[in-house]
Amino acid sequence: MTDYKAPLRDMEFTLFELLKFEQHYDALGVSEDASPDVVRAILEESAKFCEGVLAPLNAVGDREGCQWDNGEVRTPAGFKEAYQQYVEAGWPSMSHAPEYGGQGLPESLGTVISEMIGTANWSWGMYPGLSHGAMKTLELHGTDEQRQCYLTKLIEGSWTGTMCLTEPHCGTDLGMLRTKAEPQDDGSYAITGTKIFISAGEHDLSDNIVHIVLARLPDAPAGTKGISLFVVPKFLPNDSGEAGERNTLACGSLEHKMGIHGNATCVMNFDAAKGWLIGPPNRGLNCMFTFMNTARLGTALQGLSHAELGYQKSLAYAKDRVQGRALSGPAQPDSAADPIIVHQDVRRMLLTQKAFAEGGRMLSYYLAQLVDIEHLSEDEDAKREASDLLALLTPIAKAFLTETGFESANLGLQCFGGHGYIQEWGMEQNVRDARISTLYEGTTGIQALDLLGRKILMTQGELLKRFTKQIHVFCKENAENEALGDMIQQLNTLNKEWGELAMHVGLLAMENPDEVSGAAVDFLMYSGYVTLAFFWAKAALVAQANEGSDDPVYRAKIKTARFYFARVLPRTQGHREAARAGGASMADFSLDEF
Amino acid sequence: MTDYKAPLRDMEFTLFELLKFEQHYDALGVSEDASPDVVRAILEESAKFCEGVLAPLNAVGDREGCQWDNGEVRTPAGFKEAYQQYVEAGWPSMSHAPEYGGQGLPESLGTVISEMIGTANWSWGMYPGLSHGAMKTLELHGTDEQRQCYLTKLIEGSWTGTMCLTEPHCGTDLGMLRTKAEPQDDGSYAITGTKIFISAGEHDLSDNIVHIVLARLPDAPAGTKGISLFVVPKFLPNDSGEAGERNTLACGSLEHKMGIHGNATCVMNFDAAKGWLIGPPNRGLNCMFTFMNTARLGTALQGLSHAELGYQKSLAYAKDRVQGRALSGPAQPDSAADPIIVHQDVRRMLLTQKAFAEGGRMLSYYLAQLVDIEHLSEDEDAKREASDLLALLTPIAKAFLTETGFESANLGLQCFGGHGYIQEWGMEQNVRDARISTLYEGTTGIQALDLLGRKILMTQGELLKRFTKQIHVFCKENAENEALGDMIQQLNTLNKEWGELAMHVGLLAMENPDEVSGAAVDFLMYSGYVTLAFFWAKAALVAQANEGSDDPVYRAKIKTARFYFARVLPRTQGHREAARAGGASMADFSLDEF
Repeated sequence: MTDYKAPLRDMEFTLFELLKFEQHYDALGVSEDASPDVVRAILEESAKFCEGVLAPLNAVGDREGCQWDNGEVRTPAGFKEAYQQYVEAGWPSMSHAPEYGGQGLPESLGTVISEMIGTANWSWGMYPGLSHGAMKTLELHGTDEQRQCYLTKLIEGSWTGTMCLTEPHCGTDLGMLRTKAEPQDDGSYAITGTKIFISAGEHDLSDNIVHIVLARLPDAPAGTKGISLFVVPKFLPNDSGEAGERNTLACGSLEHKMGIHGNATCVMNFDAAKGWLIGPPNRGLNCMFTFMNTARLGTALQGLSHAELGYQKSLAYAKDRVQGRALSGPAQPDSAADPIIVHQDVRRMLLTQKAFAEGGRMLSYYLAQLVDIEHLSEDEDAKREASDLLALLTPIAKAFLTETGFESANLGLQCFGGHGYIQEWGMEQNVRDARISTLYEGTTGIQALDLLGRKILMTQGELLKRFTKQIHVFCKENAENEALGDMIQQLNTLNKEWGELAMHVGLLAMENPDEVSGAAVDFLMYSGYVTLAFFWAKAALVAQANEGSDDPVYRAKIKTARFYFARVLPRTQGHREAARAGGASMADFSLDEF
Repeated sequence: MTDYKAPLRDMEFTLFELLKFEQHYDALGVSEDASPDVVRAILEESAKFCEGVLAPLNAVGDREGCQWDNGEVRTPAGFKEAYQQYVEAGWPSMSHAPEYGGQGLPESLGTVISEMIGTANWSWGMYPGLSHGAMKTLELHGTDEQRQCYLTKLIEGSWTGTMCLTEPHCGTDLGMLRTKAEPQDDGSYAITGTKIFISAGEHDLSDNIVHIVLARLPDAPAGTKGISLFVVPKFLPNDSGEAGERNTLACGSLEHKMGIHGNATCVMNFDAAKGWLIGPPNRGLNCMFTFMNTARLGTALQGLSHAELGYQKSLAYAKDRVQGRALSGPAQPDSAADPIIVHQDVRRMLLTQKAFAEGGRMLSYYLAQLVDIEHLSEDEDAKREASDLLALLTPIAKAFLTETGFESANLGLQCFGGHGYIQEWGMEQNVRDARISTLYEGTTGIQALDLLGRKILMTQGELLKRFTKQIHVFCKENAENEALGDMIQQLNTLNKEWGELAMHVGLLAMENPDEVSGAAVDFLMYSGYVTLAFFWAKAALVAQANEGSDDPVYRAKIKTARFYFARVLPRTQGHREAARAGGASMADFSLDEF
């Protein structure tokens, strides 16, 4: 069985050749800390840890799962030791603030490390992954005292964090949230309520768990405008800042899930647990958005992680497994049969995964660059531009990369035939683990509504134009490219249609707002395919400039781009027609007609 | 949690109104035994058994799985008792030959019963399901003695059957098969070898298990032309025809699978086990095709079963779960939120499942009708026509209905948001169980090669024309239909393109045979969408003739047809473009470029 191997060459291509990270870090003034040599050294170190320590625990985590015993949770064998190594090597602190013990490296570097961790072992990666969101929330919205108390420990990695939003009766619709926060005389709050689906809510990896919890103050207005944010630790920090007295909260049970068995998905009961307000009262949802956007970009990475893992394993199998003959005649006449990679249908499945994995990497690292700019740039225009593009592209990345990640995981399994259905190859685990990604952190449908409703229609298309203009300029600049001109032209056409499609749905929605929901997912998928086409065309251009190089990565990029344009991108046609058709065929079903 | 409810009204619509089964049975001279009243009574009886006995065991089977102990296999709690009830009620004998104890009812009726059983509990249904294939093989290719000995017991249900093809190194490519059959002095053969993935290979439901095994005679030519078929019972029949001495074969282990946990997937070791030749030497693969075609049609049913089950459960949830508000304003202003069925995106997911489940039912029952004609008709032209259409449509039904069944199961899960990922709702089991269906009995890729290569190109398009001509005539006859004319026109255009697409790929393949593999799956999916469009258009016409009826099924059929044409059928465009593009973008990848 092939284990995970970090695709360092492709990562470097994407970072330095496609996205010009050297110049990017230079412009932000962080190039001294994050020079190409330093970046390479960090990536190699991370690859060693992910390949050597995390990947072998991936199947273990799936089979053992987490064990609940009277409120305590034991993670699978090896998870705790791996976490200790992770902390000792200083990984948690890499992209966080030096004033609280962080190394101050740009967040984009953290994205690359997260991809490696997630591909090696997604369930394990969720423990530190959730912490990053908690850290960001405290960095931006916590008081200095809260940062000193919690952030330092989280950055050190000795404590971990969670995000407690969902309740049994409310997930998407947080306005119905019931958990209560009663003010206490000492300035703290007594938090009472039940939260469900809390990833890493309880476990044995760290000394303390810092819960970021949404709850209502007694006088809060109804709905989403009456929600506040609290920090609620498992153990109350004592005078020396260490984990002290046990707080009155506990893990009531673990969920039995389809996949990500190695991660503890907890029901958390808060029973007048002591917590402290983060940010202003009743503004919790706004503060939480910081956490949610980070989590959405993190989940986008999950899509490409499963595509990458499925691709690596199915590629190895397709080269190795002999079965049948090429239709054009034996490719290996001396052996009993040909390796199945000779079949074009197998190549179709492999290359679809490759196109989504590498294309997803380009999109994700580009978004990481935008996050850097948003946080570090001193150029206000650049910041605003980055922020706008992030607003537009985050729902696309989250939904499109997870949908195509799940498709890829399934194609990877399919390459194995019946063997893919058996536990030992790891392909079915990859599918089960991937399946959560289109659900949590906002389903595909919710991302699509966010994209089409909030981001596009509510801005009268302004946000979309920011991006389609980039594509338009790119197409214009490269229209005369002889070898790649057909791709550029195809991209240019789809890019124009993108805006027209948004306008068309906007007009339908003026008549009936429900139409936004009717068109949203097809519109989002259309958007995703065009976005990835843009990055694939860019990659082909970069590769073209290296024609004649011995490095196969350049030939591969051009060929994969051609494959993507010829065999994957035509799906836009179906999505466009479906989105254009709108909701007319769905609206008038009465309940007895379903 | 909603359990399975047999969709009797839709089954009757499909049988009697759409496909005119009354006239069909009349023409075959079986209408006395299978009058509409008898059929209805049988369906109602079957529904009671499936809803009351099998459906409650579906989750049990998944959680308990099968237990292996020193060669013996214990099925999940309740499976054995359910099987006893099934046998006592006479279900195994329904569609089999009266001379061996069968009731002689047409096979098409068995298809409807199989759908119910499979939707209620697919894993359980595989035990009797595999038996039907074994029975058919013996009916057609066994000697009279073999039929007396084995078929009688299989029809009675006291014995069950299996199908032993796959070996560790060969699945698709049976030419590499190694299991040996040595002739013995008593006319029997000593069978030695290892078979894997043997569904229902060992269990505790029946008194004996009859294995139909592919093996090689000592002097057999290499490849597929040297394979023979044997009947190899677990217990050798004694003089009184009962299970006697234990044969030297055993279940070596059970596979750990992604789903269908309730069914035992066995490694079977044959150690000079006693067996008898079925049919002529070295013609085993031809005989086995009987079994395989039955199994493929059975697997097509699996696709629609998972679509139906997912649809039923997600529909109930979408009506019940309140969350958020309709974009056009509160639909239920008095409750805290609206049921999620108000959202068009949820309707899109529900209606896609409905279109695939009901459309899959139409196609499957139509194929069952063709099987009846092939076996029972005395009109040679009708038989040939039925046989040709079956040859063409079997790979389409198997691959397309299982691919869309898996998509449907996933859409059903998606309607539940994060809750769908949790075991208790049964949605994730439905996805895991559905996942096998695109793999076994020939993967989607293999079906697609069979369709495009063997069935279409090798007959110079003759088989395809048999079906497209039907569609053409239908479109012509109904071109003037005012209310449905737009759908008819859309169907007519796609139908023409279907033939052109086949021709286009045929021309590519003349240059390079590998192109068939490059285009096959997209071609098959295109074919599937058009085939279902034909049935949906037909259903809409039947419904139109009942305009004004109070029965909501008619309004629902027209609306679902409109939904299918507007929102699902446009996917043909992407598949057409991808198939047309052929393999050029995949062929020239060298191994280091993957």
